[in-house]
Amino acid sequence: MARPLALTEQTFIDFIARCARPLRPKPAVGIGDDAAVLNLPPRSQTLVTTDLLTDGVHFRAAWTTGALLGRKALAVNLSDIAAMGGQPHSCVVALGFPRSTTLAYARGVARGLADMARSHGVALVGGDTCAARALFVNVTLIGSVEKGRAVTRSGARPGDHLYVTGTIGASAAGLSLLAGRGRPGPGMVIRPTASQSLRRRAIRAHLDPHPRCAAGRALGLTGLATSMIDLSDGLAQDLPRLCAASSVGAVVSQSALPIDRLATALFGPGKALQLALCGGEDYELLFTARPACEPMVMALSRRLSLPIRRIGQILPRRAAIRTVDTKGRYRSLPAGGFEHFRR
Amino acid sequence: MARPLALTEQTFIDFIARCARPLRPKPAVGIGDDAAVLNLPPRSQTLVTTDLLTDGVHFRAAWTTGALLGRKALAVNLSDIAAMGGQPHSCVVALGFPRSTTLAYARGVARGLADMARSHGVALVGGDTCAARALFVNVTLIGSVEKGRAVTRSGARPGDHLYVTGTIGASAAGLSLLAGRGRPGPGMVIRPTASQSLRRRAIRAHLDPHPRCAAGRALGLTGLATSMIDLSDGLAQDLPRLCAASSVGAVVSQSALPIDRLATALFGPGKALQLALCGGEDYELLFTARPACEPMVMALSRRLSLPIRRIGQILPRRAAIRTVDTKGRYRSLPAGGFEHFRR
Repeated sequence: MARPLALTEQTFIDFIARCARPLRPKPAVGIGDDAAVLNLPPRSQTLVTTDLLTDGVHFRAAWTTGALLGRKALAVNLSDIAAMGGQPHSCVVALGFPRSTTLAYARGVARGLADMARSHGVALVGGDTCAARALFVNVTLIGSVEKGRAVTRSGARPGDHLYVTGTIGASAAGLSLLAGRGRPGPGMVIRPTASQSLRRRAIRAHLDPHPRCAAGRALGLTGLATSMIDLSDGLAQDLPRLCAASSVGAVVSQSALPIDRLATALFGPGKALQLALCGGEDYELLFTARPACEPMVMALSRRLSLPIRRIGQILPRRAAIRTVDTKGRYRSLPAGGFEHFRR
Repeated sequence: MARPLALTEQTFIDFIARCARPLRPKPAVGIGDDAAVLNLPPRSQTLVTTDLLTDGVHFRAAWTTGALLGRKALAVNLSDIAAMGGQPHSCVVALGFPRSTTLAYARGVARGLADMARSHGVALVGGDTCAARALFVNVTLIGSVEKGRAVTRSGARPGDHLYVTGTIGASAAGLSLLAGRGRPGPGMVIRPTASQSLRRRAIRAHLDPHPRCAAGRALGLTGLATSMIDLSDGLAQDLPRLCAASSVGAVVSQSALPIDRLATALFGPGKALQLALCGGEDYELLFTARPACEPMVMALSRRLSLPIRRIGQILPRRAAIRTVDTKGRYRSLPAGGFEHFRR
């Protein structure tokens, strides 16, 4: 039986502090003072990012566990620091819990956050918590990057190759299953051959994403990436953001897209392509590099045991952003993705 | 007529970006990339603090304006950086808006945040926003402090003098008026002589607090303060926190407390004392200094044109924390203040 939340703010802060204790880098002053004091690496620039997960908007509390929610709340921020080529350092968290939250769920969130932090060498140095009408988790992550080495969205140039790490579409496939309570979302048909194990793995991909911290850091430190963004809202939204910031166009080869085989096995190739383009939350890295750097990008891929696929090329802005299929037909990138204030 | 919130996430982020534009220190990379890139002062330590304001818990949307809410959301964080003796630098904000929020209210929040940031030389460098069941604002503020100069809660020693900046009790008096919709809260009686202007000023003190940034910075840089905390939850909660962190006791002279004359004029001396001790949100600084530093503390007070009152003394831990009245009677500090998860 789940116990109802019977904890004071202080008790919960104490619990988070206990979870967070054995972390490096040890802050000079951690949880318990007016502010945390951090020793960031000298001669570096400071990175800051913040992401908000709200019940009913970004997730549903009933679909996930406290621990997975805590992990994901930090993971999405780690992905942002990775996309800048930075090293994550310390985080603070603001948590809003409805009064109906069970103690087990709340502790799970804290434990998930602390576990994710520990496995990425991030210190959890402060936070704030309160009663709220809907559960939310807001993590702010501080990182560092060597001076002038941050990889922004604005450095892509015509001729650059366009790459994506890992595979895309599995998270959206999992979300579709969750939204349909084990059955597919509207307009989706699960293939009769799809096993329970496939379904579970797609759902796991959605609930417990793995940010590409090592790849982002390596692409930044080596100077290989000329521009980079993480795929949080899907290629169809994130590629246009990168192109707009860089004032360029792009062409994406459909056949080169690393569509996750979970998505294909569950929903067939047509829907899987749609999930890979318009679904979000893969937290893979989309980046550009000079054509001459292709061998080094591939060497990095082998070194990290992480597939990195060349999916297209950067073009002048007037070329717009298009996809090309195997028959050489060009199409505009489909609009799509998630918009919070859409009614 | 208030227009309903008809804005996309991107529109609102653009609006915040416009509000935030003319700020110094200019971030190396500001709003619009995966993370902001900051140039913090060299040879400094980094400060991080986060504070959450939630409708129905920390404030009521109907009692305040968007602009005042935005100001306060940053002010409470500025107060935390001040209490460490630090210099605020850059902030990020996470905003949750119910779908019923008007565009004017949402823009007010952004404008209030940006105004407060500008007047304290803070850059608004990023954020996240989404639909939420209850309005909330979560600001994370990054600051810096010269290496080893952060003023923690743990440096007070027996014999140190105990000081408070400004006056206390006005914010709690204002909150009491708001809670009673212009009439006083439960157990409170407004004096018949209290004018509308007094009421308005007390309410303003609650809705638009002024953090003691210059005083905190000066107390840190000069090394005068041996320990410091900001009065966010009231003396009766914050002094025990400082004493616990420093492993000391304290005695507070009731007659020395700088009780705000708004509180006294509105509710009489007895209730005003209670508001000053147990009310919160004054965002004044409570700090300790060596007795020999008394002349320098007073010189600082004159220099900043800010009253700084010596209200007591730090004692060994076994002496506990007590108040003493004009007749020499000792009492335990009254428990009180705000606890979020209390039912």
